[in-house]
Amino acid sequence: MTAIEANASDLTCDVVVVGAGIAGLTAAEQLVAAGLDVRVVEARDRVGGRTEGGEFASGTVVELGGQWVGPTQDEVLALAQRLGLETFTVYDEGSSLLFADGTRTEGDDDTFGLSTDAARAFTDLVEHIDRTAATIDREAPWDSADAVRLDRMTAAQWLDAHCGDADARAFMDTMLASILAAESDEYSALHLLFYLGSGGGLHRMMLTIGGAQESRVRGGTHQLSERLAESLGERVLLDEEVLRITGWDSADDADSEAVAVTTEHRTLRCHRVVVAVPPTMATRLSYDPPLPAGRDVAQSHMTPGNVLKFQVEYPRPFWRQEGLSGMVMSLDHDVSLVYDNCVPDSDAGILVAFVEGTHARNFNSLDERERARRVIDDLTAFFGDDAASPTEVLQRNWSEEPFTRGCYGGRFATGLWTTVGAHLAAPCGLIHWAGAETAAVWNGYIDGAVRSGQRAAAEVVAGVR
Amino acid sequence: MTAIEANASDLTCDVVVVGAGIAGLTAAEQLVAAGLDVRVVEARDRVGGRTEGGEFASGTVVELGGQWVGPTQDEVLALAQRLGLETFTVYDEGSSLLFADGTRTEGDDDTFGLSTDAARAFTDLVEHIDRTAATIDREAPWDSADAVRLDRMTAAQWLDAHCGDADARAFMDTMLASILAAESDEYSALHLLFYLGSGGGLHRMMLTIGGAQESRVRGGTHQLSERLAESLGERVLLDEEVLRITGWDSADDADSEAVAVTTEHRTLRCHRVVVAVPPTMATRLSYDPPLPAGRDVAQSHMTPGNVLKFQVEYPRPFWRQEGLSGMVMSLDHDVSLVYDNCVPDSDAGILVAFVEGTHARNFNSLDERERARRVIDDLTAFFGDDAASPTEVLQRNWSEEPFTRGCYGGRFATGLWTTVGAHLAAPCGLIHWAGAETAAVWNGYIDGAVRSGQRAAAEVVAGVR
Repeated sequence: MTAIEANASDLTCDVVVVGAGIAGLTAAEQLVAAGLDVRVVEARDRVGGRTEGGEFASGTVVELGGQWVGPTQDEVLALAQRLGLETFTVYDEGSSLLFADGTRTEGDDDTFGLSTDAARAFTDLVEHIDRTAATIDREAPWDSADAVRLDRMTAAQWLDAHCGDADARAFMDTMLASILAAESDEYSALHLLFYLGSGGGLHRMMLTIGGAQESRVRGGTHQLSERLAESLGERVLLDEEVLRITGWDSADDADSEAVAVTTEHRTLRCHRVVVAVPPTMATRLSYDPPLPAGRDVAQSHMTPGNVLKFQVEYPRPFWRQEGLSGMVMSLDHDVSLVYDNCVPDSDAGILVAFVEGTHARNFNSLDERERARRVIDDLTAFFGDDAASPTEVLQRNWSEEPFTRGCYGGRFATGLWTTVGAHLAAPCGLIHWAGAETAAVWNGYIDGAVRSGQRAAAEVVAGVR
Repeated sequence: MTAIEANASDLTCDVVVVGAGIAGLTAAEQLVAAGLDVRVVEARDRVGGRTEGGEFASGTVVELGGQWVGPTQDEVLALAQRLGLETFTVYDEGSSLLFADGTRTEGDDDTFGLSTDAARAFTDLVEHIDRTAATIDREAPWDSADAVRLDRMTAAQWLDAHCGDADARAFMDTMLASILAAESDEYSALHLLFYLGSGGGLHRMMLTIGGAQESRVRGGTHQLSERLAESLGERVLLDEEVLRITGWDSADDADSEAVAVTTEHRTLRCHRVVVAVPPTMATRLSYDPPLPAGRDVAQSHMTPGNVLKFQVEYPRPFWRQEGLSGMVMSLDHDVSLVYDNCVPDSDAGILVAFVEGTHARNFNSLDERERARRVIDDLTAFFGDDAASPTEVLQRNWSEEPFTRGCYGGRFATGLWTTVGAHLAAPCGLIHWAGAETAAVWNGYIDGAVRSGQRAAAEVVAGVR
């Protein structure tokens, strides 16, 4: 009766990859290239994980999940090129808008609309953050100088100590929420500095041109996974929710049936497993024998961010005519961040709006209609009446997605990096861990996901355990 | 092939209770008393959850999990009496020991060995905590005055603001770790005040005589569950790990097959489900349809404490002859808390030692032999050479237990009580939630578990949803 019984669809292979997001598919591709027999099992009926395509009634495709790429994200850029995908530069002309303390200000990439003093304090804080982030060991944050002290305080406390300007400090919280989808008191200073440092610093992460929001993939980032999956062909099994991983502690990794991955439909036996799902999802799989405490605490205590993403289509990008870039940051509204999100294949005006952190958790209790209404209200407050009548609103609450349960990435609260952090990416017997949260470079980003898949595949090939 | 298929052991009843800890068994007993047909499914081969008996080779039984009861814990005390279990008062004569900054001091229940100034500052802080905790709405902490502000800061920050004495402040952290098994920067001020307030305040929680460590159940607290299970008889199914709960969103709760609880061995169909497992375990069940985001975030973000408990047996309670109570608090060692844990049925000397919070997470990477060695080393540092040669050491790392994954209870970091806290105990369709973390009174304690089971049963009987 149980899934453990022999079944016609049972199979044996070298490596089973759990999760067909970019990390898992990258790992699978490299393992196949190394001559191994691989299967990728994916719970959903689609590949892509935290990247996902969405289509307006107009036929225009946009991303419901991760969408930007930028300089130094060399692995994802190389992957896109190799897969024949084009990138395009986002629209970044005109003024941005800042809403704070009930006031609307126009700004640019240097001032964001802050007062001269606040802008200077903010710039100084970014520089101090980035100098400190550069001292964090990206491969082993727990070994960094001062790691225990930085891990014992929240990022908010560390920022308070290094910024005396209240406006700059408040703006920093909104900026960081736009990057981590969590409030600055919800993760440790060490996590902040590691995370920002993994991408080359906050300055790079917050920039559009020259930074992490510079480019997009024409047709959507989900095509990265779709094309990888295409080349993997029947090795990718969709609608295969994994229930249990058995035998990962086997001493004999030459045994081609050492590990059993049990899905709803079959049992796959293999030498090695690559688990390429977010930590909160890895927590929800069953392991026999149970995982060691350090590993379990690491993955179950790494909580994901909370964010809702809205893609809002208008007949035309009306804000451009008013000299606005479309970028908004607000400390006063549910929507804290907006960008112009138009695509080359459409004349429509598209805005992408994010509801993050506390705002996102509060949105959970609203239905989709009410969520859209509030977002449109905020956009109308930002851009005027032209924003009140979108053609269509697409939305995704990533905390609702049963096989993701949060975006963008995971965070460690105080005291975790220095006690269980080493377990996050280290193999556990015959299980290897991939996914953006396990990346040393561009942690939490698509590029980090690619790198984590490469690393996990290399571990398997080298026989690391 | 899957567990969804009809099976000879499939069955239909009114209510399925998931988890045979004290909460689940209490709920089951009351549901049976209300005339309902009930089954309790338990993943382990034993009942009791976070209470568990352990037996020394000498035959003496002690608790590997929760063990104390005290005044105002009226529900668990009434339950023990009704089940024919005796309680006994713990040994509390002589001096306690405090280790801080490399210094050993003898103390009493008022000073703990602190200096006069530090003791006064500590007492003042306890009084301030308890006055503030009394203002928190135990049924709805998120509705308390000042809730958002208190939820936005860590307990550590709030304590820093209310205590200027460094020794008292450091001692408070160790005291709180002994209650929450987590560091004070790992939960919000609102969580601290709610949690302490739920038990009548820190003063009551930290006391031995007159407080939460006053009494024990002769033969062990696990007998509460064992006797409840005995009376429930064949309604309790052991070794039945739940994989999935399906149909909890059904509009028709009169339908006797509205919900399906799928275990490894069978499918149980029922009107209602009571999930009586810790939040981190509720997260690991599969739900069809997926749970709403608010509920999922509440349970998955409520991280459990980290603690290892050691029961150390000696030929005799040698510390008593030296005028010591056996109680130790240390800010300098892995073992932060020790009590005399002798039992009436044995002449042996028994000490119970706890490794909590950060210390516990660091202990995860050691094997049991090394863990015991370090604990014995600390006990020897506390009590001298007599402590170096125990008869036997029993130990339990609750973060390792696959169906618990942490003790004592769960905690909310900043920003959670006021955004998703209301989801923690509120029914979700046809699922009701029990367990110590859902209790308004003595949250996290055995008494809270009993009360939560009573509350969930009452909801089911009343048809609340």
